[in-house]
Amino acid sequence: MQPKSNIVHLPVYQPGKPIEDVKRELGLTEVIKLASNENPLGSSELARAAAIQELGQSHIYPDGASVELTAVLAEHLSVQTNQIIFGTGSSEIILMAARAFLAPGDETIMADETFSQYKHNAEVENARLIEVPLANGKHDLPAMLAKVTERTKIIWVCNPNNPTGTIVTKDELVSFLDQVPKHVLVILDEAYCEFVSDPDFPDGLQLLDRYRNLLVLRTFSKIYGLASLRIGYGVGHPDVIRFINQVREPFNTTRMAQAAAKAAIADQDFIDRCRKENAEGIAFMAGRFDALGLSYFPAHGNFIMVDVKRPSMEMFGALLRKGIITRAGWTYYPTHIRVSIGTKEQNEKFMTALEQVLQESAVHG
Amino acid sequence: MQPKSNIVHLPVYQPGKPIEDVKRELGLTEVIKLASNENPLGSSELARAAAIQELGQSHIYPDGASVELTAVLAEHLSVQTNQIIFGTGSSEIILMAARAFLAPGDETIMADETFSQYKHNAEVENARLIEVPLANGKHDLPAMLAKVTERTKIIWVCNPNNPTGTIVTKDELVSFLDQVPKHVLVILDEAYCEFVSDPDFPDGLQLLDRYRNLLVLRTFSKIYGLASLRIGYGVGHPDVIRFINQVREPFNTTRMAQAAAKAAIADQDFIDRCRKENAEGIAFMAGRFDALGLSYFPAHGNFIMVDVKRPSMEMFGALLRKGIITRAGWTYYPTHIRVSIGTKEQNEKFMTALEQVLQESAVHG
Repeated sequence: MQPKSNIVHLPVYQPGKPIEDVKRELGLTEVIKLASNENPLGSSELARAAAIQELGQSHIYPDGASVELTAVLAEHLSVQTNQIIFGTGSSEIILMAARAFLAPGDETIMADETFSQYKHNAEVENARLIEVPLANGKHDLPAMLAKVTERTKIIWVCNPNNPTGTIVTKDELVSFLDQVPKHVLVILDEAYCEFVSDPDFPDGLQLLDRYRNLLVLRTFSKIYGLASLRIGYGVGHPDVIRFINQVREPFNTTRMAQAAAKAAIADQDFIDRCRKENAEGIAFMAGRFDALGLSYFPAHGNFIMVDVKRPSMEMFGALLRKGIITRAGWTYYPTHIRVSIGTKEQNEKFMTALEQVLQESAVHG
Repeated sequence: MQPKSNIVHLPVYQPGKPIEDVKRELGLTEVIKLASNENPLGSSELARAAAIQELGQSHIYPDGASVELTAVLAEHLSVQTNQIIFGTGSSEIILMAARAFLAPGDETIMADETFSQYKHNAEVENARLIEVPLANGKHDLPAMLAKVTERTKIIWVCNPNNPTGTIVTKDELVSFLDQVPKHVLVILDEAYCEFVSDPDFPDGLQLLDRYRNLLVLRTFSKIYGLASLRIGYGVGHPDVIRFINQVREPFNTTRMAQAAAKAAIADQDFIDRCRKENAEGIAFMAGRFDALGLSYFPAHGNFIMVDVKRPSMEMFGALLRKGIITRAGWTYYPTHIRVSIGTKEQNEKFMTALEQVLQESAVHG
C-alpha cells in the first residue's frame, strides 16, 4: 500500500500523560494531572443526567444534524441555527475546515507556538505551512498578515493562545480582520474564551456580522467539563458552515454528547462558579510565581505558562516523580512548563512540589 | 473564502428519517423506523452500565489510544494490539483511510451500489472514482479487478453489501485478493458480519496474515447496538494501522464508547440472541415476500432489499404514511426498497402495511 507521501513522517499526537500510567510507572498512589487543561470541578450534574437518559436509545443513531442542540445553542449565542456546526471536540472542526479548504500546495498561516492540531491537519492536507513566531508569547498579527498571498486559504488565531495563555485584544483583532483579504478564512479558536475576564478580550461572535470570512471555534471540553464526551462547535457565516458540513461525517457526535451539551448550556451557574474558581487559582499561582521570582505569560485561560529557568523536560520529570503531571518541551520555550489550574488543593500541592524541585535543582545545579 | 473546488457540489449525507420528524410531519402517534439497520433489541445492559460508570470522569479526556479496549478486542479477535484502530463508527475509519491514502487524481474502485461513504470520502480527497456496477446485487470482483491501474490506491468491498445484503464468498474473495497488486489497499467493510450464518462467508480477519494490503472494518453500531455511541474499528497490518493513526484525531472516540464497547464484547450471549432473532426475522420476511410474489436479494445482514415492482419513492412515501420508515431511491434499483429487520412485532406491522400499500397501488394503478 502507498499512503500519501506527505503523511508518513507525521507524529501521532502525544496527549498529556494519563494518571494511571504515571501511578504504575512510578509506583505512586496519588497523582495530580495538570496537563490537559481539564476542568477540575467536573461538569454540571444536569449534563451527566441528560447523557444517562439518552443511553436508553443506545442502538439508535444520533441526530446527525444535532437539530435540538443547535436550536438551544443558537438561542444561547444569539446566532442563527445555520451558523453552527458541531464536531467531536472543536478539534474535529479544525480537521473538517482543513479538509474542506486546503488543497495540496495551498498556504496556511499560524503562530509558532500554538495548538498543534492546526499544523497537523494542514500537513495531512499537504498544504504549505507558514509559521510565524509569537512575540512575547502573543500572536504577532501584523507579521502574520504580511505573509498573506493569493494562495493563502486559512489563517489560524488561537485566543487565548494555547500553550502561552496570552490574548490578542479586540482592537488588534479588528485591525487584523479589516486587512485580511476576503479570500482568506480566519479561524479564531476560542476554546478557552469562557474563562477570560479581561475587558479588552474580543468576543468573536460579535464580529461575525462584519466578517463573513471568520469562523469561531468553541468547545464543551474546557469550562463545560465534557472533554470525555467529545463535543465542540464552530460558528460562522452560513456559507462557511455549509462547506464544512459537506465534508462532515454523517453521525460525528454522539447522542449522549448532544444531550449533555444541551443540558450544560442551561446550567450557567456552574459555568460562573468555574470561572470564579479558575480566576482565584490563577491569582494564587501568579502570586507564588512572583514570590519565587519566576516570570510567566499573562494567563487568560485555565492554565499558566511559567519560566522555571531550567530545562523544561528535566523539570517535567522532577515534578512527575512527585506525582504532578504538567506539560513541557516546546521548541521556542525550552525552560517553560505549562500547568493547568486545578482545585485549590491541587494548586497548593503543585506549588509545594515546584518549590521542592526548584530547591533540589539549585542544590544539585 | 475558497473551499476546495471538488467539495462544493457534494451532498450532505441523508440519514434515515428520524421517528420524531415523521410523527410531527404526518401527525402519527406510532412510527416504526426500519431505515438505518439498527438493532431492535437495543444493546447489552452491561455496556450501558459501563458507559454510565464513566460519566463520573466526564471532564477528563478519553484515552486517545484506547489502550484497555484495544487489549480486550485484540484478545477477542485473536489479533495483535497494533493491528487495531478505533473510530467514531467504522465510517470514521473510512474517512481516515481515504485521508491517509488518497491524493488528488489517485484512483479508487468501488461497487455501484454500495455504502455511500466510500464515494463521499473519495470525492472529498479529489480522487478519481471508478464505480463498477453490481452483478445481480453482488460485488463483481473480476470486473473490479480489471479496473486496477498503477494509480489505484484503494478498492472497497462491502461484505455483506449495503444496501443489497449480498455476500462475496470466501473463494471469490481469496481469488480476488490473490490477483490484486500489492500497492493497492483493499478495504473489506464487514459492518454486518456478525449476522451472517452462511458457511461460505469469509472471515476477513483470517485473511490478514496472507494479505498485508487488507484492512477489515467492523463496528459496534450494528449487532452490538451501540450506534448512538459512535465506535467502530479497523483491523489490518501494523503498517496500515500506523499510517491511519497518523491522520487520526487525538481523541476521536469518547470515554463512554470505549467503556461500553469493552463491556459489550464480554456479553456474547446478547450477540448470540440478536443473531438468532435476526435470522428468524429474515426468514419471516422472505416467506411473506415469496407469498406476495416479490423477489429480493439473498439477505445476509440485518436488512433485506426487495423489489416491490413499483417506483420505490412512491412506495417509500406510502409506507411512511402508515408509520413505517424504510429506505429507497437507489439509481440502479428504482423499484427496490430496503427494510431493516425489526422485532417480530415490527416485522409483522411492516408486512401488514406493505400488503396494504401494494393492494392500494394495484387498485389505483
